Amino acid sequence: MKPYQHPTFDQITLTGLLHALSDPVRLNFVQCLATKMCEQPCGAIPTPVAKSTMSHHLRVLREAGIVRIRTEGTQSLTSLRLAEIEAKFPGVLEAVLKAAEAEKPLEQHS
Amino acid sequence: MKPYQHPTFDQITLTGLLHALSDPVRLNFVQCLATKMCEQPCGAIPTPVAKSTMSHHLRVLREAGIVRIRTEGTQSLTSLRLAEIEAKFPGVLEAVLKAAEAEKPLEQHS
Repeated sequence: MKPYQHPTFDQITLTGLLHALSDPVRLNFVQCLATKMCEQPCGAIPTPVAKSTMSHHLRVLREAGIVRIRTEGTQSLTSLRLAEIEAKFPGVLEAVLKAAEAEKPLEQHS
Repeated sequence: MKPYQHPTFDQITLTGLLHALSDPVRLNFVQCLATKMCEQPCGAIPTPVAKSTMSHHLRVLREAGIVRIRTEGTQSLTSLRLAEIEAKFPGVLEAVLKAAEAEKPLEQHS
């Protein structure tokens, strides 16, 4: 399996970040990932969409610089690039995740 | 001229807000509008796109609940719905505008 490509810190843009977070499925995924302290197998986070659709969403999140994905054996492990995003756009992701939680708490997600 | 339709406070969604801000032209427009203390004629804010394209962008911003547009005679006047957005999604727009300014200060815009 080819290693995943990721944008460098300098390549991450604010509009790219906002676009990636502007989809309910992707925002929900990032919300779930943010509650975990370590990288997660992609299948460990429940999503309401087909696997192929989720692959697309993960690609958008990876290309926007929000998640890092690496393979280990046959598994893909995903983690948030929280420190980098916070360093680049202070307060943005935190405020978005707080607003997302206020609008639709994770417990209520199907 | 028909009055413009606007979403109510309850109809404004976080993903709609993020989507509307995820375009560089729209984000730049909101950045400019945020520096003004009062509503602006649409033509008063310089944009790098054709008038018809800007009409589309303004519609996206209006339908997302970010701007309010009203007509006065033959003029359309635009204002940010800053207080409502802050009440609904505390800190989000402020953090986004700060990050936008850090990434691309308004002075550097063409």
